[in-house]
Amino acid sequence: MDRRDSVSSIRVFSLNCWGVRYLSKHCAERYGMIADLLQREKHDVVLLQEVWSEKDYLFLKKKLANSHVHSHYFQSGVIGSGLAIFSKHRIQDTLLYRYSLNGYPYMVHHGDWFGGKAVGLAVVNVGAMTANVYLTHLHAEYSRERDVYLPHRVVQAWELQQFIRHTSAGADVVILGGDLNMHPQDLGNRLLKSYTGLRDAFADAGHFEGCEDGLTLILDNPFISKHVIAPFEKGIRIDYILFKGSCRADIQCSTMYTTKGSVPGHPFPYSDHEALTADLHFDALAPSEACGDSRARSCDRAQEVAQLVDILTEARTEVKVGVHCARRMRDTATRTGIMGLALLLLELVIAAVPWLAPGAQKTLPFPLTSFYLLAALCLAILLCTTWLYVFYSMELKSLQGTEDQMRLAVGGLQEKLRGFPVVEQQESVGK
Amino acid sequence: MDRRDSVSSIRVFSLNCWGVRYLSKHCAERYGMIADLLQREKHDVVLLQEVWSEKDYLFLKKKLANSHVHSHYFQSGVIGSGLAIFSKHRIQDTLLYRYSLNGYPYMVHHGDWFGGKAVGLAVVNVGAMTANVYLTHLHAEYSRERDVYLPHRVVQAWELQQFIRHTSAGADVVILGGDLNMHPQDLGNRLLKSYTGLRDAFADAGHFEGCEDGLTLILDNPFISKHVIAPFEKGIRIDYILFKGSCRADIQCSTMYTTKGSVPGHPFPYSDHEALTADLHFDALAPSEACGDSRARSCDRAQEVAQLVDILTEARTEVKVGVHCARRMRDTATRTGIMGLALLLLELVIAAVPWLAPGAQKTLPFPLTSFYLLAALCLAILLCTTWLYVFYSMELKSLQGTEDQMRLAVGGLQEKLRGFPVVEQQESVGK
Repeated sequence: MDRRDSVSSIRVFSLNCWGVRYLSKHCAERYGMIADLLQREKHDVVLLQEVWSEKDYLFLKKKLANSHVHSHYFQSGVIGSGLAIFSKHRIQDTLLYRYSLNGYPYMVHHGDWFGGKAVGLAVVNVGAMTANVYLTHLHAEYSRERDVYLPHRVVQAWELQQFIRHTSAGADVVILGGDLNMHPQDLGNRLLKSYTGLRDAFADAGHFEGCEDGLTLILDNPFISKHVIAPFEKGIRIDYILFKGSCRADIQCSTMYTTKGSVPGHPFPYSDHEALTADLHFDALAPSEACGDSRARSCDRAQEVAQLVDILTEARTEVKVGVHCARRMRDTATRTGIMGLALLLLELVIAAVPWLAPGAQKTLPFPLTSFYLLAALCLAILLCTTWLYVFYSMELKSLQGTEDQMRLAVGGLQEKLRGFPVVEQQESVGK
Repeated sequence: MDRRDSVSSIRVFSLNCWGVRYLSKHCAERYGMIADLLQREKHDVVLLQEVWSEKDYLFLKKKLANSHVHSHYFQSGVIGSGLAIFSKHRIQDTLLYRYSLNGYPYMVHHGDWFGGKAVGLAVVNVGAMTANVYLTHLHAEYSRERDVYLPHRVVQAWELQQFIRHTSAGADVVILGGDLNMHPQDLGNRLLKSYTGLRDAFADAGHFEGCEDGLTLILDNPFISKHVIAPFEKGIRIDYILFKGSCRADIQCSTMYTTKGSVPGHPFPYSDHEALTADLHFDALAPSEACGDSRARSCDRAQEVAQLVDILTEARTEVKVGVHCARRMRDTATRTGIMGLALLLLELVIAAVPWLAPGAQKTLPFPLTSFYLLAALCLAILLCTTWLYVFYSMELKSLQGTEDQMRLAVGGLQEKLRGFPVVEQQESVGK
């Protein structure tokens, strides 16, 4: 049966709402503006990030009760994952995958750890099609020159591509929206796109309206402080809508839009990020027998496989740097803990000497205040270092686990590469 | 094309190795025995749990270098996930899903939290077939009468079924092995089996050899203390091999074996759990057009759907109990923290009074030792309760998230139920 007659379309919206109550500027007003926009535009699927308060989600849910009947808020971490999806179509099923690494709890001022970053999956029925809609927000990049979170973000990108590949075999189309906190050519982005075969709506759109180069953090946005995007003249692009079809459906992006800072008739923009809208059209394909496991994505050419091996090798190097750092930090915590314990024991021994030595005066050889303060300090050091040891051990396990998986993947790809005809292999090496 | 001529088989082995170095009895000797068994029997896929030390995994890997060329150790948590897979067939890909809940870190004597319980997926190519092999170990049940971990285990069972459903659409056959820490009729087990359609190898085997009723923790095992299985005369069954086919392959279990405590020629058994072996045979089916999304499992009859709604409702109740407990614990932590803070402030005020009141004596109104001890106590309370507040907030988020997802699922199922013909609906209600 040729089902080419059943063509459908889906309009996807994605926005990082910057919704930190009491801290983000004009938070409540902006949510009101966002709700008005969504009510008016009636996108098929709305993917929101940084909706940190469940109250704000419930506010949106109430406002969108008629335009977007189906919704889901992904709960995670201490504060939440910040991920919310609203849909005109039934959300058949959901699943949340929490990234194994997401910054450090003691970096309270960065706050990423408390957000419990994750990728949410909503299985949405669009007509006869099943769309797997993924929504995510990766760890922020606070310094491009000295990005201590790079190994964590690479692990997140790795887990994101794994999760998408493994869960999308049954989907007709795959859509991913969110704030990836990665520039288009960043390692994690290349890893994600090469491995999953996802296409960038901005790059693939037939028509584009919005900020130059599809930027999503721009200087024209009054909420953006210049130092955030300092090394880049006009701004950066870190928010994306990505998509791909399957052997059962073809998908194309006809038009892509971004907001451009200000909103007509309003004194400020929707958020510090620009909002993205993509019009995607899909087209059912005649079922073919080979149509089974879409996990084995179409790396059919030696060149593609060789490229993937290169990207994976680069990612492994980055993860190894992370392993090295985590091990060093754990060793530092261990040494500091041992020092704290030694100091405590030393203090106790010195304090005990007058009581043990016969004939000596039964008083402390140092002031009582110093004694208690030092003991408290030693105990605090012991507690903190124990906790840090546990934390770094977990970080190390996750990094090593990722490195193991990457090694397995490189091995598999290299074997595949050896299976290609010699001419094609040489070509791929020459490129 | 009819591919009925290509029949394959796979022999699966599963064992909880009880591999706590220095604590589990005869740990090293038992690993030696396990390695000998695996080398001799050459099972296709070996699923091991509680391999807590990576050194023991590496020992097995070395010993099995010829019999089981492919292997993977799933890293997670502080100690590890304890999960290891060895395979005669190529492991094409792996993925680890860490359960969002897994006991409490302060229950150090139970230790589950430190193990980072998870489900590991290995995509294994068996001939022309793709087998998704899952391996897991759920939170232990320390008291059947007063099981405080029940909500956590129900959430784990929920996440396990979600993970299997969402990741197995591309698989020809699905195999799950592990220590589920649930009796055959326990809520989590019913949830897992009804939702995924997985079949129990013990119940479905054409032929069975081993312990009566397929028990896996038995009194005849010298490592088992009587109080562990006290309410049950002969023992309990908590380890399983489950399986299912797809629209592309049919699968049957011809024979199932368990060990029976002692090992001939050895003074003690392989572990405190019995080992399971299942001979599975699969048979390729002619591809059909409907063969796409295996997530929408074959709940085609109103009775099945109604049963699933009942199980889900029971599970939701259990998760709600968990939400209630977590909220109460968080409230207790908050109140205790506030008391600690109030006490600290009160102490500081009392200490400051002599310095502030004109003409009063400038000394502390209580002994210096008490002052420092009380201040240290207050600070310790503040630190601990802050940490507990963060932990319980995360627990609450996970429980609430699961409850949300279950509510969504029940809604979907009830809608499906309304779609069935009235006669069938009445039948299902009457049962």
